[in-house]
Order: sequence, then C-alpha cells, then structure tokens
Amino acid sequence: MEKEELRSLCRTCIARKATTIPEHICKQLLSIYNIEVPEGKFVSTAAEASAAAAQLGFPVALKAVSPFLLHKTERQAVRLNIGDERTLSEACGAMEKGFLNRGEEFDGYLVEKMIPAGAEFIVGLQNDPSFGPVIMLGTGGTMIHLLDDVTFRMLPVTREDVEGMIEEIRGKVLMRGFRGSPPLNEAAFVQTLLAVSRLGMDAAGLYESVDFNPVAVTEKQSVAVDAKIILTQEPAGECLSAPTANTSHLDKFFEPRTVALIGASTTPDKIGYVVADSLINHQFDGKIYPITRGRKKIFGLESYESLAEIPEVVDLAVVVVGLALVPEILDQCHGLGIQAALIISGGGKELGGEQAELEKDIQYRARKYGIRLIGPNCIGCFNAGNRFDAFFQTHERMVRPRKGHTAFITQSGTYGCSFLEAFEHIGITRMISYGNRVDVDEADMIAYLARDADTKVLAAYVEGLGDGRKFIETCREAISTYKKPIVVYKSGRTKRSAKAAQSHTGVYGGTYGIYRGAFKQAGILSVDSFEELLAVTKALAMQPHAAGPGISMISNGAGPMVNAIDLFGRYELEIAPLLNETVEKMKAQYPPFYISKNPVDVTGSATSADYLFAMECLLNDPNVDIIMNWFVFQDTPLDEGIVEAVAGMNRKSGKPILCGAAGGPYTRRLSQAIENVGVPVFESAHLWIAAAKALVEWGRLRASIY
Amino acid sequence: MEKEELRSLCRTCIARKATTIPEHICKQLLSIYNIEVPEGKFVSTAAEASAAAAQLGFPVALKAVSPFLLHKTERQAVRLNIGDERTLSEACGAMEKGFLNRGEEFDGYLVEKMIPAGAEFIVGLQNDPSFGPVIMLGTGGTMIHLLDDVTFRMLPVTREDVEGMIEEIRGKVLMRGFRGSPPLNEAAFVQTLLAVSRLGMDAAGLYESVDFNPVAVTEKQSVAVDAKIILTQEPAGECLSAPTANTSHLDKFFEPRTVALIGASTTPDKIGYVVADSLINHQFDGKIYPITRGRKKIFGLESYESLAEIPEVVDLAVVVVGLALVPEILDQCHGLGIQAALIISGGGKELGGEQAELEKDIQYRARKYGIRLIGPNCIGCFNAGNRFDAFFQTHERMVRPRKGHTAFITQSGTYGCSFLEAFEHIGITRMISYGNRVDVDEADMIAYLARDADTKVLAAYVEGLGDGRKFIETCREAISTYKKPIVVYKSGRTKRSAKAAQSHTGVYGGTYGIYRGAFKQAGILSVDSFEELLAVTKALAMQPHAAGPGISMISNGAGPMVNAIDLFGRYELEIAPLLNETVEKMKAQYPPFYISKNPVDVTGSATSADYLFAMECLLNDPNVDIIMNWFVFQDTPLDEGIVEAVAGMNRKSGKPILCGAAGGPYTRRLSQAIENVGVPVFESAHLWIAAAKALVEWGRLRASIY
Repeated sequence: MEKEELRSLCRTCIARKATTIPEHICKQLLSIYNIEVPEGKFVSTAAEASAAAAQLGFPVALKAVSPFLLHKTERQAVRLNIGDERTLSEACGAMEKGFLNRGEEFDGYLVEKMIPAGAEFIVGLQNDPSFGPVIMLGTGGTMIHLLDDVTFRMLPVTREDVEGMIEEIRGKVLMRGFRGSPPLNEAAFVQTLLAVSRLGMDAAGLYESVDFNPVAVTEKQSVAVDAKIILTQEPAGECLSAPTANTSHLDKFFEPRTVALIGASTTPDKIGYVVADSLINHQFDGKIYPITRGRKKIFGLESYESLAEIPEVVDLAVVVVGLALVPEILDQCHGLGIQAALIISGGGKELGGEQAELEKDIQYRARKYGIRLIGPNCIGCFNAGNRFDAFFQTHERMVRPRKGHTAFITQSGTYGCSFLEAFEHIGITRMISYGNRVDVDEADMIAYLARDADTKVLAAYVEGLGDGRKFIETCREAISTYKKPIVVYKSGRTKRSAKAAQSHTGVYGGTYGIYRGAFKQAGILSVDSFEELLAVTKALAMQPHAAGPGISMISNGAGPMVNAIDLFGRYELEIAPLLNETVEKMKAQYPPFYISKNPVDVTGSATSADYLFAMECLLNDPNVDIIMNWFVFQDTPLDEGIVEAVAGMNRKSGKPILCGAAGGPYTRRLSQAIENVGVPVFESAHLWIAAAKALVEWGRLRASIY
Repeated sequence: MEKEELRSLCRTCIARKATTIPEHICKQLLSIYNIEVPEGKFVSTAAEASAAAAQLGFPVALKAVSPFLLHKTERQAVRLNIGDERTLSEACGAMEKGFLNRGEEFDGYLVEKMIPAGAEFIVGLQNDPSFGPVIMLGTGGTMIHLLDDVTFRMLPVTREDVEGMIEEIRGKVLMRGFRGSPPLNEAAFVQTLLAVSRLGMDAAGLYESVDFNPVAVTEKQSVAVDAKIILTQEPAGECLSAPTANTSHLDKFFEPRTVALIGASTTPDKIGYVVADSLINHQFDGKIYPITRGRKKIFGLESYESLAEIPEVVDLAVVVVGLALVPEILDQCHGLGIQAALIISGGGKELGGEQAELEKDIQYRARKYGIRLIGPNCIGCFNAGNRFDAFFQTHERMVRPRKGHTAFITQSGTYGCSFLEAFEHIGITRMISYGNRVDVDEADMIAYLARDADTKVLAAYVEGLGDGRKFIETCREAISTYKKPIVVYKSGRTKRSAKAAQSHTGVYGGTYGIYRGAFKQAGILSVDSFEELLAVTKALAMQPHAAGPGISMISNGAGPMVNAIDLFGRYELEIAPLLNETVEKMKAQYPPFYISKNPVDVTGSATSADYLFAMECLLNDPNVDIIMNWFVFQDTPLDEGIVEAVAGMNRKSGKPILCGAAGGPYTRRLSQAIENVGVPVFESAHLWIAAAKALVEWGRLRASIY
C-alpha cells in the first residue's frame, strides 16, 4: 500500500509541474515508511504558527513551504532554535516578505519542534543514468562540503550494505562515544537508512534525487529533520531490473575457424596490411579470407571482392574499412548467416553528429540481425591459447604475451597494448579491446570470460559503463559462481576527465563515488591507477589469497620498508606481531647487527640463506599472512641462490609471497628470474603494498562467498 | 615588555609545577598581545558567577578553572549557551561536585559572554623536537578530528606564510560567504594568527603546546574563545636560532687526490674488496692506499698496516672495518692531520644500547678534532665528474650514471642505488648516502652542493631530519641565492613507519604535517613517493620551468589522457584553453576524425608530422605553458621521425616538453631515444603529471625569488 500511495503522490505532483513535494506532505510520507520526523504542523499564517509553537513547545524550527523551493538555507527560508513567540512572529514576517519580494509562490509555514543536539548526517537518493537508483550517506549537516565524507550504494541494499556504508565514513565516530558523549542510537539510524532505501526503490523512476539533510541521530532517535524530494520531469518505469549478460556467439571472437578480413591491404603501414599479417603470419591456424578490391595475393592467400564470394560461412568478420561501409556489411553478414563481427574502424560516436547517427544505425542493424559486434573504435581481441589476434600493431612493435591465467577487457586500446606487453612473461588467456561497445558490453564479456576454465583472474579498464546495473549484477554473479577475482580500474573520475572520456569514446564517465560503492556491492576489487591494475592482477594471477591482513617484511635495505609502512593505513594492512619464538629463532641464527623483528632487516650483509631462514620462520608463524621480501640485488653478499630460495618457499608455502626490487639491468634480470619461478616482483613500495592489499581483500571476499 | 611578562609568568607557573596557565590569566596575557578574547570574569563561587553573568548579559559560557585541567569537554568542565540564572547555578553546582568527587584542585569559574555564531578554527603552537616552535591552523572546533584539515608552519612566520596557511585549508570557505552567509572578518583572523605567532616566539622553550580551540571568526571579530597553554617541565632557551651549515672540508669527500681505504680486502665478496675495486679499477685517478693486516698486493697496489705508515697525509680516509675501531682511527687521523673520513660500516645507533654509545663517542671525537665525517651506516659518495666512488656495490650489479646536472643526497643506501641506476643515462653530478649522519648533515650537504656550478637540481630522500630548523634555513638560503630547485621526498610519515625508520637509521621520523609546512616556507618542492622524486628530478634536470599551469596534451591514444586529467585537481593544473586560431589551424590541417582541441587526439593514424604540427600550434599559443605528448609507439603509422620532431621542438621551444609512453622493448627503445635528445619520457600518467606540476611550481617559486 505505501508504495502505491507514494507513486501516486509523486505522479500528481509531477503532473502539477512541481519541482518538489511540499515538505509537510513529504514528512507524512516518511511516517508511512516508519522514518521518524520531528513533531510539527503545517500552517498558513503567522498567527497559526504561534499557536502551533505553543502547542509543540519552544524551541521550534520555522520553515517556509513552497513547491519550487530547493535551497532553504540560501533563501533564508529556515530558522532554527526559535525560543519565544516574538522571535517566531518576526521570523514569519521576514520569511513571507522575502517570498513576496521575489514574486515566488508561498504556501505557508512548517513549524517543528527542535530535535535535541545529536550527530548530523546527510542521506540521499539519486537516479543515476548508469546505475539507476542509488543511496548516499554522508557526514554532515552544513559541513558536508568540507568533510567530503560520503559513500554510495546501488539500490536495493541489504542490512550488510548499510552497515558497510556507516563503517566507511569517518563520521561514524560521532555515534560511538565521541569526545566523552554517550553512544547514540546507531541501530535506529540503520533502520532509517533501510527505510530510505525502501522508499527509494518504491519511488524509482519518479525522482531526480531525494535529500534528507540532516538526519539527526541522538541517544534515543534517528530523525529526518529535513526532507526534500526533487521530482523528475520525465517519469520512467521502475528501472530496477538489469538485462542479463548475453554471451551468445562470443566464442566466435576467440575461436573462429574461419575469418574474413574486410579491408585487407598489400600496402605496408596500412591497418589492413598489419591486421592481415597478425592473422596470417603468426601461429594462428584458422583459415583467413582476405577481402579487398581487385584480385591480389595477400601473404600468399587469394583475396576476395566480397563476403559473398567466400566459399563458406565464416565464423568471424574482421572489419577495418571506413565505418560508413559497415551497415551494408552487416546486411551481407545477415544474408550469409555470419554471426560475429569485429569492427576495428573508428570514426563513430566519439566524433558526434552524423558519425554518431551512423553508429546508431550499426547498432540497430546488429540487434535486428542478432549479429554480435565488438567495437567499433578498438584494437580487437586476442586469444593467447590459439594465438588468434587481429591487432593493427606489428609484432616488431608490440609483443604478444604467452598463455597464462588472466583475462583483460579494456575500453582503451592504448592500455590494451600496455597490458599485453606488461604481461609478456606472466601470460594471459584472452584480451578484448571493446572501444565504443555498440553491442557486446563489459557485462557480456565478464560473463563469458568468467566461465573460461583457464582464466583465474579477470581485469578491466573502464572509463564509463554503458549499463552499470547490468555490469554490477553480472560481476556479482560471476564472482560468487566461479570464485574468481575481478579487478577494475575506473578512470574518468572527475567531471573534467569524464569530459575527455566523452570526447574520445563517446561515453559519460560520471563521478566515481557511485562506481566505488557499486563495485563494493559486487565484490569487485577496485584500484586507483593503471599501474595498480597491473600490479594487483599480477599478484592475483601468481599467488594465493591471504588469510588475513598480517604483513611480514624482510629486506637487506630499510628505505622501501619505511615507505611501505607509510601506506599501511591507507591500504588497511597491519605489521603482523610475531610470536616470541619466531623472534628468538631469528636472534639465535643471525649476527647481532641484523634486526630480528618484523620488519626483518638482514642488512647489506644478507645472503640468500639469510632470506630463506627468515622466510621459513615467518611461514611458521601463525600471525603472518603474507611474506614480503624486498631485495637490494646490488649488494654483493646477496647471491643468486635467492632465486631458488624463493622458488622453494613458493612451492611449499600456502601463504602468498610478494617481492620488490628497484634498479638497473642486473636487478631487472634477477627480478625476471624470480617471476619466472612464479613469484611476482614489484618495482615500487607502493605497488608492492597495493598487491598485498588485493590479496588480503580477495581473501576476505572469498571467505564471505563460501 | 609583553615578552618579559609572558616568560616570567610561564616560569612562575612551571616553578609551581603547574601543567597549564589558568585560563583567566591566560586570557589576560592574550589581551596584552592584542588577541581578542570573550568578555568574561573569574569568580570563586556560584553566587559570584550569577552576578558576573548578570553584568555580562546572558547567554554566557561557564568554565571550571583548575591548574591541572587539560580536557574541559571530556571532564564536563565547560557549559555553553547558558540562557538564565537557574541553569547557571545548577551548572556551577554540578561542575564543582565533579571536581570534588574526583579529588581534583578547583580554583573557581570563568564566566564569559557567548560569542555570536561564526566559523570555528583551531590555532595551536607546538615545540617540535626537530623544528622548534611551530604554529598550526585547522578547521574545526569539535569536528577537527573528522575534518583532518590542518596546516603547519615553523615560527617565525610572515604575513605571507599566514595567508598561505589559510589558503591551504578547505575551511577557508567558511569565511568567504559560505552558503549565503556574509563574509567574515578574515583580516582580523590574520591578525590573530600573527599575534599567536609572536606569542609563540616570545614564549619559545617554555611550552609543550598552546591550543586556541576554537578561535571564532565572525563578521566583526576574531576571538580566541578558549586558550590553553601547556607548559614544559623542562624549560629551555629560546631555541630559535639555527646553526648555520658547515661546508668545511666537504670537497675532500668528492675530490680527494689521496685516499686511504681502512679495511681493504683480497677476499672477493667482502665489502673491503668491492670498495677497493670501486676505488682502484674504474676511472678514478686519485692515489689509493689500501690498509689491511699483513703485507699484501691489492689490485696491484701495496697495502699498509696503518694510516701512520702512509708516506703522505691523505685527503680522505674510507673506513669499512668494524665500528668499534673507529674511535681509535679518528685519534690517528687527528694525529696525522687527516680532515675527512667516510664511515661506511654500520652497527651504530640503529642497534641501540652500547652501539649507540659507541656512535656518540665517534661523534664526540669527530667534533673535538674538527674531522668531518660522513656516515656511519651508508654506501658513501660518488662524483660523476672524476668518477670517485667507494661503493660496496660492484659495477656488474650496479651501473654508475654518466655526468649530468643533478645532485642527490639520501638517508637510505637502497634508494641511493636505485637513484644511481635510474639516472644512468640522464646523469648526475654528485651523490651522497649519509646514513646515521653523526657529523655532516643534510643542511651541510645542501649548502655545499648548491654552490657546485655543474649542479642545477638538488634532490633528497630523508626519513627524518636531525636539525629541521637548520635544514629549512639552509635550503631557503640556497634556493634564493643560487636559484636551483630542491626536491625532497620525506618518508616515515606515520607513527608506524617513523618507528621502522627509527629501528633502522636511529632517527625519529615524526609526523609529516610539520615537514610539509616547513618545506613550503623554504621553497622546497616536496613529493610523495620515491618514484615521484625520480620523475620530478628528471623533469627539472632536463626541461625549463613552466610559466604557468596551462597544460596542453597531444596523443594518439586517449586512455592516458583521461587518467592524467583525473589528477589535474590534485596537482593544481589546468587544461589550457586554446586560442580559436590554434584550433582552426589544426582543423584545417588534420583529417576530420582527429580531435582538434585540447587535449589533441591525433588517433591511431598519427604520424610524426602530425605530432610536430600540433606541437608547433601549441608552442605558438600563449595560453599553453607546457606541451605534453603521449605516444602509443605500438601504432604503426607513428614513424621514428618522432625522435627528431621532438628534438627539434625541444631546441626551439622555450616551453617545457614532457612525454609519456608505456610498453615493451620497442617502446622502451623509442623512449630512450627521446630522452637521449633531452626530453624526458614517463611510463605512467601519474608521473607525467607529477613532473608537470613540479615545473609549474618551480616556475612560481622562481618568479617569487626574482
């Protein structure tokens, strides 16, 4: 019942072209949802206001009510803590006069009993273009802008989500015995948040945003002191159901037995030449049909003039000709029964205008025909297993990685190249650069890759999501079904860079807060730079998860450990407190100038045997969850036996091992040797720590799944 | 007069063993310093309090006065906004009872007129062990812990310092028409800060800390509502004068004609062997005297049994024997007239106990004899000009950089190695790893290196400073005298990592806020990671400063630009708005699918000519201060002419050029080629942007010097 009442009221107000629901009505609604509001009365005149105040008891708050009023404080349309009748009637006069002077509609006054002092929070709802309805929690009242202490979740939320939101904001301390004050009613506040979420779900599609600012939490209550529902002028359905991922025919992008290359070229440096080289000359053993004008030999293969000439129905059409030709190509594909096309060509919505229209036409045809499209404006796909690739980067300029356990999807082709080369030795399974994603989107790819038996880690670089809700639901399901970590770096976080993202890949990047919250709900590991994405993915691909946040470090040089510890707070890690026996064992073994505690400083005199001894001690200490070695390979006593020492530990240790080292050619050679035996090495303290954090977080998430 | 009054009052209270100066007396003091305080009265009884309130006019604040009271709010020893007499007398009763119940000394009440609502700030003074008296400003009142919006400066401060502090905190907006309120009296607040600073200088050495919390700023006034002086129990002198840097004999560490190596060895892998190799076998042409037991040949040189046997007075003694032998060695040096010793050996104060005592003895003798010491516990010095080095890292494992323009000092030997190798091709002038710095300290080295004609940029890695005040004054003078940028990365920023720093190099790292403020006062460019230190130093060494914050970007791949722009806010950079003619020129030249605005996206089709054209357009646009190219070298059309294109622009452009690229072997080769022509290339968007920020900041600092 409450839901129908709410939706019908919203619709009535929208029909009246009102921007908001008047506050006194709004508060009646809240009561229906069991959200506490201050005792109050809506009145029309100053005299009635006085009578209401007498009845409620001073001190009171006075608020002007008007259907078009959005910013009460700025408009002097709210007065708090009015202690007597004279002040009240003066305030009424001033308020009404202000409205009259500005020629604004004025409905009357809301007189409310003041709530005793407590902690103030802002709670809000928004209708996000990508995620649909979301809830926000912030610390604050008037200080919210300064505090910048907010968090978001996609609706619907669970009690666990809501408790997680509270845990995330610094302002939680205000409720927990702040500066000697008694603890406030946090349980009531949780109820308020859950009720607001229910309201947000019920009214979905009818509001732009809803603000409860502040919600006052006191020892006894949690009260929505102020409530403002900003209605949408374009009411929509409930928009809460996300389309499910569509993985049909995606195999054709990775395991095509037959490929047509539309736009093959015999001119070196042309994209059609390089793609032909990638397809034909490098280990991939599918059949390639080059299509170009005139009969030519392309790397020894006969060329064709059109798809229709090809003697069989190809699994995949790779398109590098101008985008304007693509609608017709799709018509042909449909006629021939081709079900997958990779459109490398750019020149679509990133240019706006007619080109954006063209891209819409392409999308329309693909959907109509049921043809799966990747692209346009991308560098394509790669399968490290069968070596299928259609990259327009030559093998001379871009190395292809060996087969490994990581899949990567990327909106940016540039970062696609960087990822491939960074994972040369570590290896990957599949990679997709998806550009403008007119059809196959992030969710489709995640759903597809999560099912791939060889893929153990999924990584994604995104600038904006087409359908955020679909992505989140798909990731959530993939993670809980397949128990594989998904790492996402979302860039385009500020308005500025969202705009840059827009001009390049035609999407609105949005702000990051909502993404961050939604990623948490899905169990996604989110990182803050492309370098962190590489580091975290590498760690997850090579090492097991951590059982807890207890870090141990060993080094023959202290500097990087000092740096690392600086980051422990930000990354929520802890120096594991060692057992006494662990410390004593090390003391008994080491010369007195080694420092036998955590972190272990084996000094410039350390040998590989010294590292091995420390690693064994730490492995046996139950307080240690991760073993982190930093190596100054430049120091002579450290012999190359270190590679086998680490390899041996890695074989028998159930605990993750992460290494670090920074230097020139010798250091790089030793680091590579250690990575070759399965243990990742990082070049900076920051990435070393970010990797540890990810193993801890993945351990926690995994535990919550099982 | 005010100063004497203040110091004598503090001393009287200290003699009484009081922790604080009673608030009512404190406020009298403030009035002497022209710091406004609320109108108020100190009284002994509740009845007197009522009379005082009647005289002042309600509402009033009531505070308990006690010489040992530190936390009024937590002790319920303050009540604000008391509106009538009954409430006042009840409050007096409750307060006195609380003190009696706890058996604490109770002097009486301070009754004060309430200050009208305004913005609240915290202003404080601290006596820092490394920097002496410092002032703090924060946004706040009770919310300060949540806001974490504070800034520091070393005393004395200028008006410019104080204005800079206000500009730094987010809370400044509260004074500048926050949410429709009128602007507050910021000028009065500046006066308060300057007066507090004067007080902090006058009372230097007598307090632990002073809190003014809050200082209320209203439309009319700036009032210290609450004041608390916490006295030191160990009063000191004024501790405001810093010792000046001592550069005597430092030349001997870099240009010794004769060197004794105490502890030379014929056993490979021994430190004494590797150091002998570094000194004897690699380009350095000074005379080396190896000292060891027994007559041996070391790399063809005769060895000696002691310093006394050497036929001349050496310029420098390099010591790698156990630290216990060093006091005697110093005695010998003194006897022989040797004035400089480099102590590589560790095992001093980082181990505490007897070893710390030994190190003190070494320090004592060095000072007594006037012998300059570098170390102990370090990797030594390097002069890229004459190739002098005494590193215990072999040339096989650690490359030595060529001669360039950067000097580097480092508390961490590990980061010393990393820096040397990172600057292999860029080049350096001199490098010092100084370890436990018993004698030559950071300030001495900065003063010495700033004078070196070949050195254009100074970089430092520090975990803690021995004498912060000396360092700051030395840097300030060096920067303004020689107009050379000084870049500092201070690690050991949290209590945790400061502790790790302590256990390794025996210094207390402290917290970072004070360092940050003091660095600003000196004009130091401070960075937040070792990788930023490398990036920023490289940019400053290779490129001119920027005239302003206007960034232009060109790329054939959008991803890194989206990432870069995400960082613009944090690094205070701006996308330069291009002149219309610049845009039109590019549009006329480029195909329609290039994006001819800032950032310029020349797409995967770009050639070196396309980059060159964009660079020329941007160079001629007066709104552009820095030209930033990102290269996807993997994309085929981008020809290797790009190296000469960048080189040519670099020769004629007065504006700095910074490049970026991330990839495998081909990308690294092209990046190296571009660096070889004098333009730095960065591997991540973050470092690319951090470098730009440094060129902008150095431009601003330089302008303020001239």
